[in-house]
Amino acid sequence: MKAKHPQETFVVMSELILPNDTNTLGNLMGGRLMHWMDIAAAIAAQKHCNCPVVTASVDNVSFNNPIKLGNLLTIEAKLTRSFNTSMEVFLRVWGEDLSAQYRYLSNEAYLTFVALDPNGRPRKVPELVPDSEEEKKMFDGALRRRQIRLILGGKMKPEDAGELRALFIKE
Amino acid sequence: MKAKHPQETFVVMSELILPNDTNTLGNLMGGRLMHWMDIAAAIAAQKHCNCPVVTASVDNVSFNNPIKLGNLLTIEAKLTRSFNTSMEVFLRVWGEDLSAQYRYLSNEAYLTFVALDPNGRPRKVPELVPDSEEEKKMFDGALRRRQIRLILGGKMKPEDAGELRALFIKE
Amino acid sequence: MKAKHPQETFVVMSELILPNDTNTLGNLMGGRLMHWMDIAAAIAAQKHCNCPVVTASVDNVSFNNPIKLGNLLTIEAKLTRSFNTSMEVFLRVWGEDLSAQYRYLSNEAYLTFVALDPNGRPRKVPELVPDSEEEKKMFDGALRRRQIRLILGGKMKPEDAGELRALFIKE
Amino acid sequence: MKAKHPQETFVVMSELILPNDTNTLGNLMGGRLMHWMDIAAAIAAQKHCNCPVVTASVDNVSFNNPIKLGNLLTIEAKLTRSFNTSMEVFLRVWGEDLSAQYRYLSNEAYLTFVALDPNGRPRKVPELVPDSEEEKKMFDGALRRRQIRLILGGKMKPEDAGELRALFIKE
Amino acid sequence: MKAKHPQETFVVMSELILPNDTNTLGNLMGGRLMHWMDIAAAIAAQKHCNCPVVTASVDNVSFNNPIKLGNLLTIEAKLTRSFNTSMEVFLRVWGEDLSAQYRYLSNEAYLTFVALDPNGRPRKVPELVPDSEEEKKMFDGALRRRQIRLILGGKMKPEDAGELRALFIKE
Amino acid sequence: MKAKHPQETFVVMSELILPNDTNTLGNLMGGRLMHWMDIAAAIAAQKHCNCPVVTASVDNVSFNNPIKLGNLLTIEAKLTRSFNTSMEVFLRVWGEDLSAQYRYLSNEAYLTFVALDPNGRPRKVPELVPDSEEEKKMFDGALRRRQIRLILGGKMKPEDAGELRALFIKE
Repeated sequence: MKAKHPQETFVVMSELILPNDTNTLGNLMGGRLMHWMDIAAAIAAQKHCNCPVVTASVDNVSFNNPIKLGNLLTIEAKLTRSFNTSMEVFLRVWGEDLSAQYRYLSNEAYLTFVALDPNGRPRKVPELVPDSEEEKKMFDGALRRRQIRLILGGKMKPEDAGELRALFIKE
Repeated sequence: MKAKHPQETFVVMSELILPNDTNTLGNLMGGRLMHWMDIAAAIAAQKHCNCPVVTASVDNVSFNNPIKLGNLLTIEAKLTRSFNTSMEVFLRVWGEDLSAQYRYLSNEAYLTFVALDPNGRPRKVPELVPDSEEEKKMFDGALRRRQIRLILGGKMKPEDAGELRALFIKE
Repeated sequence: MKAKHPQETFVVMSELILPNDTNTLGNLMGGRLMHWMDIAAAIAAQKHCNCPVVTASVDNVSFNNPIKLGNLLTIEAKLTRSFNTSMEVFLRVWGEDLSAQYRYLSNEAYLTFVALDPNGRPRKVPELVPDSEEEKKMFDGALRRRQIRLILGGKMKPEDAGELRALFIKE
Repeated sequence: MKAKHPQETFVVMSELILPNDTNTLGNLMGGRLMHWMDIAAAIAAQKHCNCPVVTASVDNVSFNNPIKLGNLLTIEAKLTRSFNTSMEVFLRVWGEDLSAQYRYLSNEAYLTFVALDPNGRPRKVPELVPDSEEEKKMFDGALRRRQIRLILGGKMKPEDAGELRALFIKE
Repeated sequence: MKAKHPQETFVVMSELILPNDTNTLGNLMGGRLMHWMDIAAAIAAQKHCNCPVVTASVDNVSFNNPIKLGNLLTIEAKLTRSFNTSMEVFLRVWGEDLSAQYRYLSNEAYLTFVALDPNGRPRKVPELVPDSEEEKKMFDGALRRRQIRLILGGKMKPEDAGELRALFIKE
Repeated sequence: MKAKHPQETFVVMSELILPNDTNTLGNLMGGRLMHWMDIAAAIAAQKHCNCPVVTASVDNVSFNNPIKLGNLLTIEAKLTRSFNTSMEVFLRVWGEDLSAQYRYLSNEAYLTFVALDPNGRPRKVPELVPDSEEEKKMFDGALRRRQIRLILGGKMKPEDAGELRALFIKE
């Protein structure tokens, strides 16, 4: 399998926030946004592995700025790192008031997907080779985020999470 | 404000997985599930604060067992802890094949909500007093999960996260 | 087939009324509510027969209190009686204004389902044994409601509807 | 208020049954059909009273023939009788396999609506004058169906339901 | 294949404009309307060919009067002409404010469909024989509209479009 | 009002074709696609005028290649020309089978929007200045397409459509 570059997995999704996307406060519902984030990230993952994928985990998503009714939503998704059969995708979500010409970062998130073979079992994915400085930084951070996921999921002992320990202990 | 108990915030949501909820593999889409989880958790939070709420963050959600077309989805949501203006909700998601009489845990997650006053600004919420052993354990863990959120969101320095440090350093 | 008890079929469904569920008066649309009632009742029926079911009839549903935008909808469904291949389900629908802490009964209804074998033909269902006083009363009433259904559907002559006649004639 | 005729309230609704309208058996879901029936009947009622309406009750609906994926659904709705502030609507639902050129009656139902003034309170509606033999028969039957609704809703004593008693007792 | 008449393909679709059908101005969204127009026209085409169809083209649709939230939408669709494997359908879309008893023409459009055999390949369709004066005029115009489609699609040279040339040149 | 360039209005929309987007042949429904095209084009128009817009017309859309279930849909939209109060948008719609790594052009279309002031009345929009060769060609063609729209809408006489006449008559 030929290694790929983050740029080859880049996806842009644009949506207008319509009445049926909002809660009673006139803001985009968190669940509706997560639905779109899941689809945008799944497309990025499929562009990398060229096979069906399934959502494996959603990491700490913070909703900082609510997106208003009538505003434009833009989701940018790009692979940060591939592991054996899984891929981490980074998303940036923007809101934009087109009349006021005001654009704001709504939130960022990491989603992880598993590649599936035709029988629905995990299959190997190509390597991802980061290029830009930002891509390299995200590539490195992916290991740390993976350790948090494994520890919180009870699949790794904290003392084995070397990357993560380094955050807390300057040895 | 009178303190409340987790049981007062308990919510059960039942849904049948229909064709328009599934991906091309015949499994419940991750985004659709997150949409339902967001609504179930928002109800639990509103039962606690009796005011509108907005999703603040979604913590490490792992999708362990996909839920199949035609199966029953059950989401159980309950508050774990209230902070000043925010509330953490724990969800357990079950799938169930009613014909085969087989029930399986699909995933667990923590969502955090902020309570809003009529002007859409954060407002104080009542204290939550845990009762059972499981509720007390979740109440304690809520502080640790909050520190992870704040560190990952760049709002807290790792060295100030005492609860979290204890995971890595046995002092 | 082992007999079952109403409690084993009990289902709770919780939903938040969002803008796309309402009519232009800001109330939950009757048709949207019936859609949810149909799903909740189908789950209760499937819990009893452990097989696919199809809606056979909807009995006199009265919409007494409209459910408002932003309110919590709770549907409770439970089997009242099983016949040869069909099952009657009783539903109670509640609205709740979580901010005002005001809960109100919206409506009650009886839906009937037919159990299907893998070829889509009716199949026998287990017996239902009522336990509580309310369950026993509903079990008895099910026969009367069935006679109304059969008479109105032209499948029974009024003079053969003994249970129903008793309502009108004190012999 | 000028009296109206059933034909002035006649509504035809046509829909193609698409994948997201069906259950896992490939048939139109009962709840989805009830949603469309509610809208078709509400249009007929609004044509009569020229004001907003709200669903008051749904009478014994029997689903006789399931409607298949890809088939054409036709709902015909027409007022049968107007009472003081309420209106009864009769619906006939047809399925049609356009390739096989086979049309079948799926079910019939009566829905009742209440007319609302701008404050959301019941308001008087015009009289309905039936013309054809079938319309006159339905007009007469409306009283009997109304008595069943009132008795089952606990708002009328069986001994006061003269029209209905006549079904059971030939005096 | 027996020739058919436009009246045999006539379809009426009625819909109430609900909140989730509207944009932030409270008007029916153009895209939602086009979705309904596509379905209504597909039904008309299927009534003619009695087989599956696929949308081939949408001709100049002008949205003259926006349809308001709460209004009744009526789409009337009827075949204008059948070609070898394709059929042109004419649609008239009406809005109606039932409270104000005001009905207005919203827009008109021509959609073209291709008939498909069981392998998804184009198949021959019956001839259409127009009856009324309006039907005959539309039948004749269909050829001109087809030439515009073919020229704009680069499949016909302007000099071969005799019907269309006649619009510009009085020879 | 400062003139703008087509590139400033460029929009990319990505969607995965899910079961509820398809017809019974497993292809994206024409109406669902038109809905997305309408939204993508409306975003491009709003980026140009920075105000609400309403769909005015949809020009000859040909659906050449159906988009399959599970495929990626990409819509690219860009302004071609602005008139006094209206804007023409060009769309290119691509399908892509990510597993087979096969990308295909599905269709192209022109949609026209009118800019609205806060009272819902047409308002002036900025000038659009084309840059690339393709943008200039589309800018010129916009006049011709506008004449077709006006003639077909009965708002212009064929003999006044100079741009269009030139297609048929080499003077």
